[in-house]
Amino acid sequence: MEGAYLDHASATPVKKEVLEAMLPYFSVNFANPSNVYDLGTKIKAALEEARANVAGLIGADPAQIIFTSSGAEANNLAVKGVAFARQKKGNHIIVSAIEHHSVLNSARFLERLGFEASFLPVDKNGRVDPERLARAIRPETILVSVMHANTEIGTIEPISELAAICKEKDVAFHTDAVASVGNTPVDVKALNVDLLSLSGASLGAPKGVGALYFNKKVRLMPLIHGGIQENGRRAGTENVPGIIGFGSAAALAKKELPEKIKHVRKLRDRLVEGILNKVEKVTYTGHPKKRLPGHASFCFEAIEGEALIFMLAHNGIYSNTGSACASKALKVSPVLGAIGLRADLAQGSTVFTIDAGNTEAEIDYVLAKLPPAVARLRSLSPIWGKEIPEYETDACEH
Amino acid sequence: MEGAYLDHASATPVKKEVLEAMLPYFSVNFANPSNVYDLGTKIKAALEEARANVAGLIGADPAQIIFTSSGAEANNLAVKGVAFARQKKGNHIIVSAIEHHSVLNSARFLERLGFEASFLPVDKNGRVDPERLARAIRPETILVSVMHANTEIGTIEPISELAAICKEKDVAFHTDAVASVGNTPVDVKALNVDLLSLSGASLGAPKGVGALYFNKKVRLMPLIHGGIQENGRRAGTENVPGIIGFGSAAALAKKELPEKIKHVRKLRDRLVEGILNKVEKVTYTGHPKKRLPGHASFCFEAIEGEALIFMLAHNGIYSNTGSACASKALKVSPVLGAIGLRADLAQGSTVFTIDAGNTEAEIDYVLAKLPPAVARLRSLSPIWGKEIPEYETDACEH
Repeated sequence: MEGAYLDHASATPVKKEVLEAMLPYFSVNFANPSNVYDLGTKIKAALEEARANVAGLIGADPAQIIFTSSGAEANNLAVKGVAFARQKKGNHIIVSAIEHHSVLNSARFLERLGFEASFLPVDKNGRVDPERLARAIRPETILVSVMHANTEIGTIEPISELAAICKEKDVAFHTDAVASVGNTPVDVKALNVDLLSLSGASLGAPKGVGALYFNKKVRLMPLIHGGIQENGRRAGTENVPGIIGFGSAAALAKKELPEKIKHVRKLRDRLVEGILNKVEKVTYTGHPKKRLPGHASFCFEAIEGEALIFMLAHNGIYSNTGSACASKALKVSPVLGAIGLRADLAQGSTVFTIDAGNTEAEIDYVLAKLPPAVARLRSLSPIWGKEIPEYETDACEH
Repeated sequence: MEGAYLDHASATPVKKEVLEAMLPYFSVNFANPSNVYDLGTKIKAALEEARANVAGLIGADPAQIIFTSSGAEANNLAVKGVAFARQKKGNHIIVSAIEHHSVLNSARFLERLGFEASFLPVDKNGRVDPERLARAIRPETILVSVMHANTEIGTIEPISELAAICKEKDVAFHTDAVASVGNTPVDVKALNVDLLSLSGASLGAPKGVGALYFNKKVRLMPLIHGGIQENGRRAGTENVPGIIGFGSAAALAKKELPEKIKHVRKLRDRLVEGILNKVEKVTYTGHPKKRLPGHASFCFEAIEGEALIFMLAHNGIYSNTGSACASKALKVSPVLGAIGLRADLAQGSTVFTIDAGNTEAEIDYVLAKLPPAVARLRSLSPIWGKEIPEYETDACEH
């Protein structure tokens, strides 16, 4: 069947070279890297090579990389780890209102333990205003977490500006770069961040491996306590094959990124232009320019996003309604709420994330199948045709 | 080279059938199981089949299994998750003194947050005395954690007795069964526990996947907050290939366990008898009978365990000094300290863990190579030949 898989933000196939790199580490080079004998030290050396590749992708030193089991774990480690380690200095943390659930719910967990959390609003394009952040910081603020790019609306945040404000005030700054690493250039020095989360699965490594970059000046309490793996910062026997795959995928991603960006941006622009031309009453969500190059997100008026996902999937086209881990949980996305989008319009959220393997023919196939699907769903909708403004007034202050 | 890999407690090869079961889930069936469309729901169904297999191995219901990234994460989730969820009831937890670092250090982390932790002593065979546990429980005790079997000395604890005491007093009971699942029968109903940790890697699944069994009556705060994966109890995109492998390994382990136990016990007894006959001044540590069938642990007088490990490895024989994750961290094992073993004797700790694939010829090879290695190391030792008792007096009360 003809089709197009355009949901790479939620999952992407493991690359052939990556799987090949991993295979010897299941049944042949299987020893525990903590062991002192030759079989163990050989594995340890391979892990360190992978660590160097992951560090290299984001301009970090290998010693600044802590391997985790996912981007979500890295986010939990960053937010809780800094909060617990710095609680003598203060008890206030700030996160943006459009963070991933792993950041938002870590903040809410800390609130239960007596910390105070502020949820920083964003403008209608999903951007955090640096001045607003500066005003939100108090003497007792110990951590700010703002994501590099948002999965649901593609917007890239002004991280280096936000980080500079925090640095000046001795506030640790964390960014969740799960959606951006491998899709747009990410350099920890240019971004000027203290902590940065990334995920292997976004890069064509298997699910089950992530990492946290941390500036060694920042104190960090482990999330998983136990043995001395990851220099005592994350216990548990290392996911050796996963980390080897992550290293391989990081090396590939670094090499392929410039070409990938050109390719996916061209396809994305073709998709966006096509949809905006062919479909009426559709909002292109997120920042029109400062966004991930392979990311296109829309809200179609008078449509249930999930219904559209199903109709498209029936045609072999795979897209998403928002963040994958929330897609079965929530009827309206908090991200779309935070940018002030009307609740009924937010229901019609559909996100396409394009990868290097996608083709122009696939985009054209989507442009042929999507407009009739939208028309069909609207013909069944009781609210289609009513006049209502796109954004709630007063929901955003900017 | 002739040799014998006898360090299965620290790592074991992924089984052929397990890797084969996993392979389609890297690059073909790669979708995110949280997605609503067909590609996602297909993966979700495969995950649920794996969950049923893991549950089946320990006599649990599939809904009682939370997948984690390791046994260490499962232990952290159990100890911290119960402590945070039950802190209105009380702030006291009890763990045995010979728990894995992931339990001990979780308890110490909770102490920093205002909880109180008691570390329960063990006898010279490493057993927790049920009466002693009963006396240690207070009205504010909310959790007890005692491991099913100890990796370093092989001792199996009287879990069902300990759990019964806790049940009577409304104290949640957790057992770390990472060392025992797949090596000896483990049934959550027979053990009568509320929570039980296990690891895939112990069963011939890859590193990077574990699970926590939990009785649904026990409230549990997530360790990794975020999306709704694992029914909201453990966020982060599931390690799909790892979980599929875990399921496959669990099904195999259940089938193979009775034969495996017979085989490894026979080899273990041959090894123990041989070593005790051929080497003088050696202590067989742990309980002589109530221990894992494939587990043999010794302390050789006047020897550095690490030196013996290296000499054996030079002959292709792989063993361990203690718990893998501590092997580079600590000179004297806290477990051997807790059973009251003299510090200099504890230095000579050597652990052999036998699996179904090991042979009698391998054991005989060890019995040929080990005695001369011990003799050679002793000839270099300044303390060899001095008379000192095996166990410190007064170190154990039993």
